[in-house]
Amino acid sequence: MKPKEFIAVVVSTFVLIILGDGVVANVGLAPRLAGSAYNWNTITLGWAFAVIAAGVIAGADNNPAVTFAMAVRGQTPWSKLLPIILAEFIGAFLGAVAVYLVYRDGLIAAGMPNVWSTGPGSVFGNTFWGGDSSGALGSYSLLTACVAEFFGTVILMWGVLAVGDSRNASISNLGPFIVGGIVLVIGLCLGGPSGYSINPARDLGPRLFGLLAGTKGLFDGIYWLLPPVLIPMVAAPVGGYLYDLFFGKK
Amino acid sequence: MKPKEFIAVVVSTFVLIILGDGVVANVGLAPRLAGSAYNWNTITLGWAFAVIAAGVIAGADNNPAVTFAMAVRGQTPWSKLLPIILAEFIGAFLGAVAVYLVYRDGLIAAGMPNVWSTGPGSVFGNTFWGGDSSGALGSYSLLTACVAEFFGTVILMWGVLAVGDSRNASISNLGPFIVGGIVLVIGLCLGGPSGYSINPARDLGPRLFGLLAGTKGLFDGIYWLLPPVLIPMVAAPVGGYLYDLFFGKK
Amino acid sequence: MKPKEFIAVVVSTFVLIILGDGVVANVGLAPRLAGSAYNWNTITLGWAFAVIAAGVIAGADNNPAVTFAMAVRGQTPWSKLLPIILAEFIGAFLGAVAVYLVYRDGLIAAGMPNVWSTGPGSVFGNTFWGGDSSGALGSYSLLTACVAEFFGTVILMWGVLAVGDSRNASISNLGPFIVGGIVLVIGLCLGGPSGYSINPARDLGPRLFGLLAGTKGLFDGIYWLLPPVLIPMVAAPVGGYLYDLFFGKK
Amino acid sequence: MKPKEFIAVVVSTFVLIILGDGVVANVGLAPRLAGSAYNWNTITLGWAFAVIAAGVIAGADNNPAVTFAMAVRGQTPWSKLLPIILAEFIGAFLGAVAVYLVYRDGLIAAGMPNVWSTGPGSVFGNTFWGGDSSGALGSYSLLTACVAEFFGTVILMWGVLAVGDSRNASISNLGPFIVGGIVLVIGLCLGGPSGYSINPARDLGPRLFGLLAGTKGLFDGIYWLLPPVLIPMVAAPVGGYLYDLFFGKK
Repeated sequence: MKPKEFIAVVVSTFVLIILGDGVVANVGLAPRLAGSAYNWNTITLGWAFAVIAAGVIAGADNNPAVTFAMAVRGQTPWSKLLPIILAEFIGAFLGAVAVYLVYRDGLIAAGMPNVWSTGPGSVFGNTFWGGDSSGALGSYSLLTACVAEFFGTVILMWGVLAVGDSRNASISNLGPFIVGGIVLVIGLCLGGPSGYSINPARDLGPRLFGLLAGTKGLFDGIYWLLPPVLIPMVAAPVGGYLYDLFFGKK
Repeated sequence: MKPKEFIAVVVSTFVLIILGDGVVANVGLAPRLAGSAYNWNTITLGWAFAVIAAGVIAGADNNPAVTFAMAVRGQTPWSKLLPIILAEFIGAFLGAVAVYLVYRDGLIAAGMPNVWSTGPGSVFGNTFWGGDSSGALGSYSLLTACVAEFFGTVILMWGVLAVGDSRNASISNLGPFIVGGIVLVIGLCLGGPSGYSINPARDLGPRLFGLLAGTKGLFDGIYWLLPPVLIPMVAAPVGGYLYDLFFGKK
Repeated sequence: MKPKEFIAVVVSTFVLIILGDGVVANVGLAPRLAGSAYNWNTITLGWAFAVIAAGVIAGADNNPAVTFAMAVRGQTPWSKLLPIILAEFIGAFLGAVAVYLVYRDGLIAAGMPNVWSTGPGSVFGNTFWGGDSSGALGSYSLLTACVAEFFGTVILMWGVLAVGDSRNASISNLGPFIVGGIVLVIGLCLGGPSGYSINPARDLGPRLFGLLAGTKGLFDGIYWLLPPVLIPMVAAPVGGYLYDLFFGKK
Repeated sequence: MKPKEFIAVVVSTFVLIILGDGVVANVGLAPRLAGSAYNWNTITLGWAFAVIAAGVIAGADNNPAVTFAMAVRGQTPWSKLLPIILAEFIGAFLGAVAVYLVYRDGLIAAGMPNVWSTGPGSVFGNTFWGGDSSGALGSYSLLTACVAEFFGTVILMWGVLAVGDSRNASISNLGPFIVGGIVLVIGLCLGGPSGYSINPARDLGPRLFGLLAGTKGLFDGIYWLLPPVLIPMVAAPVGGYLYDLFFGKK
């Protein structure tokens, strides 16, 4: 693997995380105008365009689960798998460093909240309410979080493969916007139970930085390993397998 | 009809419903941050990009009303009509199963609210308020809901036909985004009285699953059959007829 | 002018108004979930995609001010000017009829509020608040409303001409989305003082229907004639003149 | 430099600022419906489509930092640098004049708030809250604002260069939407600490007009010079240098 290829992966993941964790910090430390100035639309639009920006600027390799699935499918050489995943984690870690620098005053004053990763204890938590806005009814379980990450990652993988599919050649020039749109819709529609990691580097990289930065509870229990990391690593190749099963290998 | 064609329709409708009913569950069980974290924009963006995702991943056949209208117009063979509609209902039912799995904890704790279908008793109900936010003034009637579904489906059908129209060849590569945009605007602008089913499989498929899941009141009265199911089946071919009348058969 | 050309203009303006005034009624009669479920983003996205839908389905002629400016520029024959404007007003009136049918229960219960047109007395009014959300400070004057409509229409005209400009040939296939985006940004950025009519048929057509429907105060004073009707008719050709002055006739 | 080139830069920056500062005034003087009718999404969408509108109507030169970086890279002749920057400041100043005219009643009644520029004292201020919406915890420091502007401008520069990069030829027709999307995501994700000037003319031009209009505190301290003006002038060429370092000169 050439140095420039390695750097491109680092930069792509860096851009993804400085923007994606950036919008979490921005909303978590909000508001600029009033209590309702920011909402879940802000979060999901932020991550969607973070994906678009990263892809346009430095290429689409910024998700170890997708990288692994591509190796399983023979579209990425196995010899490049570990270097790419290493670059993805380095980029994600550096992106979290940048978010720390950009929001430093606010993060310190707020006691270094978990803007880094998903799940219990993160800014958005894992509680659910009833429809009447009267308060929390309970919390999503580890199992439900795993299910949400599974379906989210499968659909992400389907979208990635569909964009590269010859059936869709006529819209291939919309690639970044389609993948960004898929990530948007995963966040809007399946993001509730687990905060949609769907990318091990997106979650574990900044989580490691958060440990250094003094955020509490980041590695309590086994949550950090299962829904945001292992499930996407399994779901992405399953999604690739199902895609071929359903639509035929191209 | 080949098995792969059948499967593609199942998958397309599955993707549409896991995402579309997913955003309803996500907002209904909200909020991740505060009472105003989610809004109607979230719902309509979620459904719009669900349409885009389904279309890009597995093709555009996921609406029995449009399928029927295409058969009436001779653009789909009558022999394929029932298999496609069967596949659409299977996909919609499976999509609702997936939404149940993804939001299970929250749905159970909240008493299994109707996140499945539109109209009275659904999460978004059918009440209207005055402009002063002081509370409900009344509920939209069955007739008004039928009118809203009629106009919504006609405009959907016009959008679908316009995308395939040779007049619009220069923008045909934007097809998924245009149809997604049409569904967005129907939701934003005509979604009030009936929650914009505009697709019998979208409404009846998940409604059947909801019955198994224990949601109450799903089949009270005749509502479930008229605005979300029969009206779109009538309005789509009417829309096709009007399109030809206004713009000439191609 | 051929009958089909006339019909296309009627349909385009009909689609524009059923969707555009539809979103006003939807938000004005809201909310489906809670007091903050709808916002100004809903309104501006609704109108933007109404423009996109109308243009894709039935062509871009739905604004008498733009039609007039195109005649002044020699891009539309003068002989077609009156028939096109007549068709635009018919379509706008019929679109308002459809909005009445779609939202009838709610509109009647709420005392037939002015969801039809812009300015004083309309659902969104013309008051302004200070930044602290503590209540209304005053109302925008007639003069300020005229200034807002003037700049809004000039920028609309620049956008329309830029889309058709040979300088922009490489993005011409994005035409509907660019014009829709221009209308979005006019609403977001200049929509405050006057509610951005920028189209005489959009405002006067539904206003006439509102009179029949029993909405009060629609023709009090001279407002209805100046900011939403006369100013756009003047501003559009001025915008066309300035475009040529600044960028050279093509 | 030909007069028409100079005028195009003036017009592009004028369009950027009448729309961009327009949305700030619109939201700052809001609300048209209720306290939550506008939010940060409104602001960032307004600025993003302001960038798109300006670029489509009159070309992309409206940011002195990018202009300077392009001169450093040899893509713009040094002899044109000062005239272009002068035109950018003239256009920004005139855009602020137009915003004053469009929102005059409201701005006067509200005591001429700072809708012109970013940072302390502007409508959106520089305070941050904790996640519990209970009130302000503190204010972002000058240093943090500089860091935010640095990263925002670097990413803007990367986006601008990526759009023109031969690697991305297949999506070059999406240029305005990609750059608009990059500005959207910078606002959503990195806009918190400093209000994302990322453009000296955007900030200093309207700030000078605000001084004439009677807005207080615009030039207190050194803030006006550092985060919104000098940092972008430094960060843009640094971004260009890093882009070549990472991705190779084209």
